[in-house]
Amino acid sequence: MNILEIIAKKRDGKEISKEEINFFITGYTKGTITDYQAAALLMAMYIQGMTKEETTNLTLAMAHSGDVLDLSDLGCVVDKHSTGGVGDKVTLILIPIVASLGVPVAKMSGRGLGFTGGTIDKLESIPGYHTNIAIEEFKQNVKEIGVSLMGQTLNLAPADKKIYALRDTIACTDSIPLIASSIMSKKIAAGASKIVLDITCGDGAFMKNLEGAEKLAKWMQAIGKIANKETVGIITNMEEPLGYTVGNSLEVIEAVQALQGNMAEDVQEVVEELGAWMLKLAGKGENIIENKKKIRQQIQNKQAYKKLLQLVEKQGGDITFLENTNKFPKAKYIAKVESKYERICAKTSGRSGRNSF
Amino acid sequence: MNILEIIAKKRDGKEISKEEINFFITGYTKGTITDYQAAALLMAMYIQGMTKEETTNLTLAMAHSGDVLDLSDLGCVVDKHSTGGVGDKVTLILIPIVASLGVPVAKMSGRGLGFTGGTIDKLESIPGYHTNIAIEEFKQNVKEIGVSLMGQTLNLAPADKKIYALRDTIACTDSIPLIASSIMSKKIAAGASKIVLDITCGDGAFMKNLEGAEKLAKWMQAIGKIANKETVGIITNMEEPLGYTVGNSLEVIEAVQALQGNMAEDVQEVVEELGAWMLKLAGKGENIIENKKKIRQQIQNKQAYKKLLQLVEKQGGDITFLENTNKFPKAKYIAKVESKYERICAKTSGRSGRNSF
Repeated sequence: MNILEIIAKKRDGKEISKEEINFFITGYTKGTITDYQAAALLMAMYIQGMTKEETTNLTLAMAHSGDVLDLSDLGCVVDKHSTGGVGDKVTLILIPIVASLGVPVAKMSGRGLGFTGGTIDKLESIPGYHTNIAIEEFKQNVKEIGVSLMGQTLNLAPADKKIYALRDTIACTDSIPLIASSIMSKKIAAGASKIVLDITCGDGAFMKNLEGAEKLAKWMQAIGKIANKETVGIITNMEEPLGYTVGNSLEVIEAVQALQGNMAEDVQEVVEELGAWMLKLAGKGENIIENKKKIRQQIQNKQAYKKLLQLVEKQGGDITFLENTNKFPKAKYIAKVESKYERICAKTSGRSGRNSF
Repeated sequence: MNILEIIAKKRDGKEISKEEINFFITGYTKGTITDYQAAALLMAMYIQGMTKEETTNLTLAMAHSGDVLDLSDLGCVVDKHSTGGVGDKVTLILIPIVASLGVPVAKMSGRGLGFTGGTIDKLESIPGYHTNIAIEEFKQNVKEIGVSLMGQTLNLAPADKKIYALRDTIACTDSIPLIASSIMSKKIAAGASKIVLDITCGDGAFMKNLEGAEKLAKWMQAIGKIANKETVGIITNMEEPLGYTVGNSLEVIEAVQALQGNMAEDVQEVVEELGAWMLKLAGKGENIIENKKKIRQQIQNKQAYKKLLQLVEKQGGDITFLENTNKFPKAKYIAKVESKYERICAKTSGRSGRNSF
């Protein structure tokens, strides 16, 4: 097998085999295939497109390019993933809520891609918070307090890490098969049993329109099915920044305030929708309306806020910054523009009607 | 201007402007644009295609990425270029013939690309022959003995040199606009007044069929017209190795024997056709049939052979290797298979009928 033949095949619009995709991912991870060869192949994949079969093979090859976590001893671990957007601090609010309701959350997050900030960048604004912990510590934290949030380490899907960085420099970020395989490879490698996807859509997100967002959701669910990970996609509006603030420490402050009961309406809508589905997938409640009520309760009774403090403390973060958010260095505050849009565009799951995929 | 926007434009099949092409070529030559960005853009150019306008702009940008030779003081310098093929030693035979007939030849040749050998590689098998001489020496040689043959130096079309090497590693060699712009950029930078193109066609060449060869010829003539360099294309058959031998020193030996009167029939046909057109373009004879007679005469009277000795000696080569070719190290001799094809497939010029382009 030879990388030139593989590039030429995809360049000419032909389907490449599982073996060829494995050859590319193995060689690129080891460095025997160069950045410029990978760039040429990625551009050919972008322009000529990828079948679902190819995309799944790419996902699995990237997922298996490093360690694949086995979290089965933690119970039904539900992962949540957002395709991101300006001002998207949902993870910071949602994770403590569902963890406080007994859903084990062992979550690996990425950094910013393009113009969007990553959850890991936001958490690092809390002095002392370790995002780069060992896997054993990550699992141990979930066992002890029901939650851990860490960065993608070197041994998890290293091929995705290289390709993710390369795509950013060659105008290949907004390809649906490439986005889908990148996200799903990380989820599969990170060992989640079930996945709730928050697919952001609009000017503030990668997916500019509903059509693209639905397509992305369908591709990820197809991959999830083959990998035997139940996957639900919720398409959310990101026509403008979500919540009150944009900026790493500002969004941490906003998350703290939200868990203390002062949550922006648009953020609340997304948090309740995603959280209700996470509870459902985790077997903690079949009824979405009821689940949303439970979520509101966890905010009122401060259990979710306490879970956030517990999470931050466990990973070395200085919780006095959360208890007194004035301790964060002052940064420019970006005021929230009034929303003219419905926040939830569409909700999709493997079980419902029209939006099912 | 930004390379990501340029890549994205071509990726989406849009035409890129002269300014954008200049930005890419300038940045890639300087190294501010990386190999992987160039690889992505070249792949997008390959798949989405290029307009003649874009191809001409690419050609001119590459031609002007380094020195552009002014050979006007040497008279009407006619350059000959072959798209190459296995066993193509036409240049080694043709150049001494036309030079011996008073056509000044100042020729820069490339090295092998893919599976074909370059004239420069062949000449270097003669001990002492300098292919890497200074431009002033190159011009001086043409003034003194009417001919010089050298390699492409660092200052001539450096952008083409980088792109040529990169294309070879990313499965982007056989794109007609990219081949046309590469060849024409070198010819324009090398300062020839008129150009005769030998476009090889068949299994032993890059162009596998007549359709591709004709397309390539048309593209190069279009570029030549804009650059004000009269260009004539002759399509020649390369279904199998040309002449008796394949291999660098073997082909030098064959060239010596050809100029001493022992020329393979297929080689003779190509040499006479190209040579006759070079004489015509140089104003040394309007009639192609008559020109072919003159060529045969220069072989019979050994003037062409003497010119080869003069050329090799002038550039430091040991002519005793040509006078006694047994001095070359022994290499495997590949016997010529009987030709089943007409050698000249098509002849094209700016003036004739059906084949005119």
